[in-house]
Amino acid sequence: MHAFFLQQAVELASNNVSEGGGPFGALVVKNQQIIAASGNRVSANQDPTAHAEIMAIRKACLVLQDFQLTNCTLYTSCEPCPMCLGAIYWARLSAVYYACDRLHASAAGFDDGFIYDEIPKLPAERTIGMYYLETTNPEQPFKTWQSLTHKICY
Amino acid sequence: MHAFFLQQAVELASNNVSEGGGPFGALVVKNQQIIAASGNRVSANQDPTAHAEIMAIRKACLVLQDFQLTNCTLYTSCEPCPMCLGAIYWARLSAVYYACDRLHASAAGFDDGFIYDEIPKLPAERTIGMYYLETTNPEQPFKTWQSLTHKICY
Repeated sequence: MHAFFLQQAVELASNNVSEGGGPFGALVVKNQQIIAASGNRVSANQDPTAHAEIMAIRKACLVLQDFQLTNCTLYTSCEPCPMCLGAIYWARLSAVYYACDRLHASAAGFDDGFIYDEIPKLPAERTIGMYYLETTNPEQPFKTWQSLTHKICY
Repeated sequence: MHAFFLQQAVELASNNVSEGGGPFGALVVKNQQIIAASGNRVSANQDPTAHAEIMAIRKACLVLQDFQLTNCTLYTSCEPCPMCLGAIYWARLSAVYYACDRLHASAAGFDDGFIYDEIPKLPAERTIGMYYLETTNPEQPFKTWQSLTHKICY
């Protein structure tokens, strides 16, 4: 069953190339039914976050009208990059199956491995420098949040 | 100048809470002008990827009609989570400034640190298991991509 859905993600990835997208595809399955699917639409949508996994997660959330995908499984033609990996945790998917790994992606010119290598570095020492700066009451947003009596914790 | 914009990201984060969003805000600045801004809209939009940074990046790309944000700077009320960190690399921003770090976020109940800890693990050993499976021609999407003579490399 897992191989059946994963094969469809690979085929979606191939088809996506002929539809002006990148060579990646992903689908979200719940109760053995595909509830959302997408190819990579970065250049097509002018959106660097439009990886296949992010798009499929966003679509599945729209279908379920929920910001969590509990009991859903993601099938993706390639091992998720750190961005998509983060999205998988925030969406609380149950499991992920992939058909190629980050080395295959790198060999094809999609260098996710580079981002994986950046993550453990100190923020200011990354290739894109990330700097803490002092501001007035930086924790005010959290205090405002904590003072709410009715809120949706996500 | 950096502190000026960063303070606005913090204020946006506070205001976003009273507008039904999470306690995070981000803005994208180019040539000392704010070109895009957003709070966290995860629960408001039913979208687990709608972190302030992702939203601001997507808006900025729409404004510039480009999937890259070269020579743009991101100001965010809190250190980016791994998902947003990935998006920052894919968008090729120049630099990032932040007002709180992941420890402040964790203390307020937003546990980005947990995802940072998951990344170095072997995929199958993560809290959300990620499994390589054999498929037929898993590299076909990359081959199809490489055979294109006209394509937008992203």
